[in-house]
Amino acid sequence: MSTDEPARARGRRTRARILDQAAELFAGQDYAAVSVAEIARSAGAHPHQVTYYFGSKDALFVQAAFLLLLREARDLEPIGLRQRTPAAFREAVARTTLTLPALPVVVRAMSISRLRPELQKLAQHRLAILFRQAEHYLAGVLERHDWTLDRPIEVEVRTFWSAVLGARLISESGYGGHPSDIDVAGVLTVHSKAAA
Amino acid sequence: MSTDEPARARGRRTRARILDQAAELFAGQDYAAVSVAEIARSAGAHPHQVTYYFGSKDALFVQAAFLLLLREARDLEPIGLRQRTPAAFREAVARTTLTLPALPVVVRAMSISRLRPELQKLAQHRLAILFRQAEHYLAGVLERHDWTLDRPIEVEVRTFWSAVLGARLISESGYGGHPSDIDVAGVLTVHSKAAA
Repeated sequence: MSTDEPARARGRRTRARILDQAAELFAGQDYAAVSVAEIARSAGAHPHQVTYYFGSKDALFVQAAFLLLLREARDLEPIGLRQRTPAAFREAVARTTLTLPALPVVVRAMSISRLRPELQKLAQHRLAILFRQAEHYLAGVLERHDWTLDRPIEVEVRTFWSAVLGARLISESGYGGHPSDIDVAGVLTVHSKAAA
Repeated sequence: MSTDEPARARGRRTRARILDQAAELFAGQDYAAVSVAEIARSAGAHPHQVTYYFGSKDALFVQAAFLLLLREARDLEPIGLRQRTPAAFREAVARTTLTLPALPVVVRAMSISRLRPELQKLAQHRLAILFRQAEHYLAGVLERHDWTLDRPIEVEVRTFWSAVLGARLISESGYGGHPSDIDVAGVLTVHSKAAA
C-alpha cells in the first residue's frame, strides 16, 4: 500500500476489509464467540477502527450477516435459472434458500436489531436490498420462461422471505419437525401463463 | 387457603399463580423490565419458588409467552368461524393473527430459546401445542363449511405460522413496509370443495 494513497480511499479499504473479515468470522462461529479484537486482528486494523467505521459490534454483525446472505442468495441464482418447470423452480428455490448457511446468522441479527432501536434503520436498509435483489432475480426468471405470479412481485418476495425466516425461527427454537412439515415452496405462486 | 391442603395441590396452585402473573407482566412490559422478584411478589410467592417451579426467568418467560399466545389465538377462533367464504376466512385469520399482542412476545421467546439448548425442549413442546390447537380449530372450520385444503392440515398450519412469525420478525427488526406487503392470507390454501 503506498503511503500517499488518499486517506479516504484507504479508509474505504479498511472498512471493507473489516466487514469481509467479520462476515467470515461470524459465518463460522457463534456471535458471542467472536470479539471485536479478533475481527480487527484478522483485518489488520485496530479495534478502535471497528468502532469508528461501524459504531458497535452489533451494528457490524447486522451488516456482516446480511452481506453473507446476499452473497449466498446470489450464488444460488443459477440453480433456480436451470429449472424447466414452475413446480421445479418453486421446489428448488425453497429447498436451497432454507439451507443457506447465512440464514441462522440473519435470524440472529434480526433478533438483535428488533431490540435495538438504533440498529433498525440498518436492518431495514439491508432487508430492502435483499428484497430488491430477489425481485430483480425473480423478474428475470419470469421473463425468461414466460411465467407469471398470482400477486405483485414485491409481495411475492416478501411473503416468501417471511415463510423462510419463520420456518427457520421455528426449527431453531427447538421444534423437532421435519423441514417438509413446512411447505415453503407452496408459498410461491410462480406458474406458467398458460395455466393461469 | 386451609393449612391442611395437601402440599402437592398447594404447589400446583402456586405454580399456576406464578405462571399467570408472569404472563400478565410480560404481556405489558419488556422482558428485561420484569424481574423474578416482581413476578414472585405479584403471585404472593417467594423468588426461590419461581426458580423451584420453572428453573429460570428465561424458562418461565418461554412458558408465559406461549400461554399468552395460546389464549389469544383461542379468543380469536369465533372471528374465523363467522366467515362465510374461504376468501373471507383466509383474510380474517391472517389479519387477526398478525395483530395478536402476544406475537412479539413469542418471537422474543423463540429468539431466546434458539440460543439456549436447555430451553429447546420447552419451546418444542409449546410449539407442538400451538400447532395442535390450530389443527383442531381448522379441522372444525373445514368440516362445518365443507371446505378443503391443498396440503395436509399439519403442513397448512405450520406453513401459516412460519409466515406469521417471519412477517413479525421482518416488521419488528426495522423493516418499514406495510403489512399488506406480505400476503399471509395467500399462504392459506383453504377453499371450497366445489372450486377444487
